[in-house]
Amino acid sequence: MKTRRSDRLIDMTRYLLERPHTLVSLTYFSKRYESAKSSISEDLAIVKRTVRERGTGTLETIPGAAGGARFIPSIDEAEAREFIETMTEELSEKDRLLPGGYVYLSDLLGRPDVLRQVGRLIATEYLDQKIDAVMTVATKGVPIAQSVSTFLNVPFVIVRRDSKITEGSTVSVNYVSGSSERIEKMELSKRSLKRGANVLIVDDFMKGGGTVNGMKSLIEEFEANLVGISVFAEGAFSGDRIVDDYSSLLKVDEINHTDKTIHVSEGNYLSKTFKK
Amino acid sequence: MKTRRSDRLIDMTRYLLERPHTLVSLTYFSKRYESAKSSISEDLAIVKRTVRERGTGTLETIPGAAGGARFIPSIDEAEAREFIETMTEELSEKDRLLPGGYVYLSDLLGRPDVLRQVGRLIATEYLDQKIDAVMTVATKGVPIAQSVSTFLNVPFVIVRRDSKITEGSTVSVNYVSGSSERIEKMELSKRSLKRGANVLIVDDFMKGGGTVNGMKSLIEEFEANLVGISVFAEGAFSGDRIVDDYSSLLKVDEINHTDKTIHVSEGNYLSKTFKK
Repeated sequence: MKTRRSDRLIDMTRYLLERPHTLVSLTYFSKRYESAKSSISEDLAIVKRTVRERGTGTLETIPGAAGGARFIPSIDEAEAREFIETMTEELSEKDRLLPGGYVYLSDLLGRPDVLRQVGRLIATEYLDQKIDAVMTVATKGVPIAQSVSTFLNVPFVIVRRDSKITEGSTVSVNYVSGSSERIEKMELSKRSLKRGANVLIVDDFMKGGGTVNGMKSLIEEFEANLVGISVFAEGAFSGDRIVDDYSSLLKVDEINHTDKTIHVSEGNYLSKTFKK
Repeated sequence: MKTRRSDRLIDMTRYLLERPHTLVSLTYFSKRYESAKSSISEDLAIVKRTVRERGTGTLETIPGAAGGARFIPSIDEAEAREFIETMTEELSEKDRLLPGGYVYLSDLLGRPDVLRQVGRLIATEYLDQKIDAVMTVATKGVPIAQSVSTFLNVPFVIVRRDSKITEGSTVSVNYVSGSSERIEKMELSKRSLKRGANVLIVDDFMKGGGTVNGMKSLIEEFEANLVGISVFAEGAFSGDRIVDDYSSLLKVDEINHTDKTIHVSEGNYLSKTFKK
């Protein structure tokens, strides 16, 4: 079916968006639309311009008959800031305060619109680095890991605190839970990570950094490389945090138990990502 | 910035694709592109035709000045069948066999391309039903729930076997684990589900159906409605399964421990979804 330019642009946009970071060849598009490579090249130039003007990512084009295009999703500073401000307000709602000074996040981390933006933000921070896998710990980090992995188009792996037969052989490490000073155990399926893999750690919330530190040990056990650490929110923590080089979208500064208020501000994400 | 048609088509496609099931008004697009509503209407008609011809979903358009468009993602039978066949082969690989007759799935359920298709397939099955939330049980069901929830654009909720302080008050039920006949407990945060909500249950693997049955009890406790049950794979099960009305993408028919082979075939998904 030979196609009109407008049809090609629409289908091409969808096709590229659904396969971020994947090189789609001119040859493929030329066959798919029964159109000359020269026409496809012109189409891609139009998509590239529109994507750039709208600030939703970059279309990398590789010129020549053997070339193609690759969509790299990202977010610009204005939209990132707007999202973080919205989240700051949502997190500050009184009824999120739980006994023990915890903040209820499960509703936000179950909303596809929130997760889409969280994934896009975190992926943008690591655009110039090579990442082979995203790692998180069960359960609440999983949706964040999945969203980041969708935007980077790499797999994610789930570290577990409980052993499950469905994981096969595992590698385990002990770690000190920052908040409670207890020694705990976490493990990861042996076949889930290759030696030398470049790993990005993500999680929903970081207090003392004990859990993240456990994941760092696991990465060492697998002889893999840590690329970075990103969390949705960090909590106020008095004392030395075990982990220092991380980025957070949000920061829970203070919880006042008397009048039940939560004070939330932006984390260090914006300054780390856009002030380079 | 007044725009050319080609630019509008590209940006519009992206905008609608990123917000499935959401009505975007003509007024919004008209402002965004500084173009007359009549031009936007023509644009939407072109997008609608292309989306239909390529079988990737439906663009519902509401006519008139107060109208707009809504993208409903779906998959056609041929692509669904092709995906299920690929998965059948992947699951049949010998090295997936774990002690106890379990099949290793974690790599597949951590791959964004696989999860995207699983989500699209399951969402397609429930297109003509009203769904308010997707429910699953931690941990391995989470990626499937998230992907389905992205395509349906509704939140997902995670049932847990372990109590966590970060969930606040919970409602819990006891259930009989089908495989081991043990009585276990699962719980869900009280604020995560509204009374009367229409709930779709998804999970990675179903054997006896005990876990799914536990989730059914939870839905009753919340006075919510069960819309359907979908699993990635069902296992061979001798005896009466507690749950009978479900759909599965794949079926692990037989595991031969002597020559270490796994026999996998398609589940009942295709016949349930496309033979209506």
